[in-house]
Amino acid sequence: MLVEYDGAAFHGWQIQPDHPTVQEAIESALEVVLKTRPDVTGSGRTDAGVHARGQVAHFDAEQPLDAHRLRRSLNGLLPRAVRVHYLEETRPDFHARYDARGRRYHYYVSTVPTALGGHTRWELRPVPDFDMMNGAAVSLIGRHDFDAFCRVQSETHNRVCTVRHARWIPEPAAYPTPEIELWRFEIVADRFLHGMVRAIVGTLMEVGRGKRPPEDISRILDSGNRREAGPAAPARGLVLEHVLYDEPFRRP
Amino acid sequence: MLVEYDGAAFHGWQIQPDHPTVQEAIESALEVVLKTRPDVTGSGRTDAGVHARGQVAHFDAEQPLDAHRLRRSLNGLLPRAVRVHYLEETRPDFHARYDARGRRYHYYVSTVPTALGGHTRWELRPVPDFDMMNGAAVSLIGRHDFDAFCRVQSETHNRVCTVRHARWIPEPAAYPTPEIELWRFEIVADRFLHGMVRAIVGTLMEVGRGKRPPEDISRILDSGNRREAGPAAPARGLVLEHVLYDEPFRRP
Repeated sequence: MLVEYDGAAFHGWQIQPDHPTVQEAIESALEVVLKTRPDVTGSGRTDAGVHARGQVAHFDAEQPLDAHRLRRSLNGLLPRAVRVHYLEETRPDFHARYDARGRRYHYYVSTVPTALGGHTRWELRPVPDFDMMNGAAVSLIGRHDFDAFCRVQSETHNRVCTVRHARWIPEPAAYPTPEIELWRFEIVADRFLHGMVRAIVGTLMEVGRGKRPPEDISRILDSGNRREAGPAAPARGLVLEHVLYDEPFRRP
Repeated sequence: MLVEYDGAAFHGWQIQPDHPTVQEAIESALEVVLKTRPDVTGSGRTDAGVHARGQVAHFDAEQPLDAHRLRRSLNGLLPRAVRVHYLEETRPDFHARYDARGRRYHYYVSTVPTALGGHTRWELRPVPDFDMMNGAAVSLIGRHDFDAFCRVQSETHNRVCTVRHARWIPEPAAYPTPEIELWRFEIVADRFLHGMVRAIVGTLMEVGRGKRPPEDISRILDSGNRREAGPAAPARGLVLEHVLYDEPFRRP
């Protein structure tokens, strides 16, 4: 299934006690329809407050299901902040996490607080130098150990990721005043560590504000020390846009 | 001043008893700073629930003001759903409504309910034929009496408007599934009547769903009868994007 969610309503993807999570919402809705509660596996976890437009998840059904009807039932049962946009039977060994070859995240910012859409953007003051941030972001591309950009508590041991794309892109002018610019940071990698995109954005922001030289990104990568990187950017600007598979997860 | 607001939080622009309005919010904030309450005049009213990214308004100050400081104070006092993005002293006879030569509205839709951004879009089901709607929208362009697209209770007598642009435009694909399309209806005219854009969008939607022939738009315009047009589209999809003046409203 392809799932969109507004992260503001949840304590992240993964089930945890006493907090609403996306995984819990989907499993509960499936339980109502199927009369049995399946385990729903996502392509990866997203943190509290992080959004998704293109999360992919799977579950094993005990019997054949009418995917079209099930999707409609789920959307009727789920809170409005979660939408299942696509649902289909796939090959029996498909795995949303292990089969994923890449993920695309976008981090959205605006240079001024806005009344419309502030919900999914980080409002930057002072305004950073986006060219300088792009100069620094080049150092992220390629295969690196991202220890320094991984949350310290993370239990992941292998911290090598291959970043294929990392770039700030201006979005079309939406406001009738040049004071308000909308930008997004696009990053594509084979895998992401816990808190990695937010640590990268927070560190680039320090470069863009002249608090660090652009060369710092390589130095921080080499250090392997989370304390060398900048503070994490707020969750609300981050969206999991797309999960890439070798073959479409749709049934042939 | 250039004002952005999230219409969901207000009963429209214009002050009315017992309901929060944008005009009231701005006048109250000004009163705190100026110790006297000015009348704030907008380029036009927007209905309850309608948003603005580019509303323009003016007020007469009794003494010279530091515009930069005043704007910062206002944004500190105003609810988050209203932002003053620009504020400047202008020529003494400037009038936000009378001097406006045109307005640009956008009406935003999606072909599927979405979790992110549904707040400012109308979700269309079933999906209309946008090409057919564009064929019909051509009939709106030019100078016409828009009686049939004006709310019946409106006290405006002159209902002649000149529409310069009226077109559905697809927005860039944001979702990793072709099922979800985002579109907007752009309309530019010298002036708009009460409820006009929403009546137009609602009527075009009936064309796009095959309930009316595209030729109906001309017939409805000729009829001058509001009951001939379709139902009003919901307020939440509508945004006042830009108000046009002969000269920029900024001080030379």
